[in-house]
Amino acid sequence: MVKVAKVRLFVESSLSSGATLDLDSAAAHYAGTVMRLGIGDSLVLFNGRDGEWQATVTKMGHRSCAIIVQDMLRPQATDADIWIVAAPIKRARMTALAEKATELGATHIQPVVTRRTVVSRTNVDRLLSSAKEAAEQCGRLSVPGVGEPVTLNRFLGSLDLSRRLLWCDESGDSPPIAKVLDGLNGSDLQGPWAVLIGPEGGFDLAERTFIASHEGVLGVDLGPRLLRSETAATVALGILQSRMAVP
Amino acid sequence: MVKVAKVRLFVESSLSSGATLDLDSAAAHYAGTVMRLGIGDSLVLFNGRDGEWQATVTKMGHRSCAIIVQDMLRPQATDADIWIVAAPIKRARMTALAEKATELGATHIQPVVTRRTVVSRTNVDRLLSSAKEAAEQCGRLSVPGVGEPVTLNRFLGSLDLSRRLLWCDESGDSPPIAKVLDGLNGSDLQGPWAVLIGPEGGFDLAERTFIASHEGVLGVDLGPRLLRSETAATVALGILQSRMAVP
Repeated sequence: MVKVAKVRLFVESSLSSGATLDLDSAAAHYAGTVMRLGIGDSLVLFNGRDGEWQATVTKMGHRSCAIIVQDMLRPQATDADIWIVAAPIKRARMTALAEKATELGATHIQPVVTRRTVVSRTNVDRLLSSAKEAAEQCGRLSVPGVGEPVTLNRFLGSLDLSRRLLWCDESGDSPPIAKVLDGLNGSDLQGPWAVLIGPEGGFDLAERTFIASHEGVLGVDLGPRLLRSETAATVALGILQSRMAVP
Repeated sequence: MVKVAKVRLFVESSLSSGATLDLDSAAAHYAGTVMRLGIGDSLVLFNGRDGEWQATVTKMGHRSCAIIVQDMLRPQATDADIWIVAAPIKRARMTALAEKATELGATHIQPVVTRRTVVSRTNVDRLLSSAKEAAEQCGRLSVPGVGEPVTLNRFLGSLDLSRRLLWCDESGDSPPIAKVLDGLNGSDLQGPWAVLIGPEGGFDLAERTFIASHEGVLGVDLGPRLLRSETAATVALGILQSRMAVP
């Protein structure tokens, strides 16, 4: 049986055969102390640009770790361009949303502040770190970006019209998501997409009117039960990706 | 604007117009102390059998609360019969799995022990309580059952063949889930279903052979990234429900 490297890390450095690099202190601690890698042990690296590489530890110190990059395992692939746009929710659930969105291939996570948003603060660095960890775990070759929170109005106002807005509408007034996606032809289905998830109390009437007036918006219903934001994000991304894979 | 009752509780008692009941001590504490209901305040009750009812607090004490049931809000509906069958995972993630499965309408949560299952203990009561809370939150009229853990072999050996097994196969050898579900006709699509999710390290070869030999099993691929169990369960249930809604 092939021995599979158990440590897979996102790094900022460029990756190419023979390149050497030092892990940052947190990654070195994880590799050496948590995962107990030593000199000669293998690990896998990716940086979102140069594909996925097999690499080997050449020096291991206290919170330092030197690496030599060896063989390319997979070339960089282009991700389907899907943003998840969601009102901030409580910390643990927002972290889960970032994790799930990463596992499901979202390329960008955009917090939007709505009138009924009650969570006042979004820790962008924490979401990025959760996305990075999820990307390492799920085998992705990239880490989604995380935007600074913006208001819903500002977000929609600046949204490029070539990006289709998939609005997860919890009111029951929109058609089922499967029906809407079934009705799109192959090229319309491929996006780029922005999947919009409302706050816990839903969008208010003025916001609903504003969203509905956005050019090309597709309102969709995710089913008869009221889903938590991170569940709605997971389900909408999962359904969209599954349909994009089989147009 | 209609004042919506903010408290929605699952109770064991029978519900009918004019019935009276006492909340159990935990529910009374939640209603009185956490949600600050008092005499005359409205709440919503369901029990999985008699539909959903509007009710009013008639007495409120320290960890006691008497209720009179008044008007039916929704009649009991029959849930699509979908089990989620998953290897136990770490506590917080298993709780999330039970919560998401409930939001997505699973009728039964069945932990199965596989050869690579590393979590030795499953707290069935905790999962039930998490399912109950999610059902209260998401507007369901029922709470899924939670089974005692059984081995995979025993589970598959006793599985009624009229229940279709949707095997979320992480090996990449199965066709995409959208393709498989698109290929089913309306009545085959309606189930009953058992959605099977593997442990973190995947099923081993003998288990894979055994699952693949199960009569009528449908192996499906959830996409190119390695999903955590609770993500896979959420996505598989979400895709299945969305397809069942639009056959």
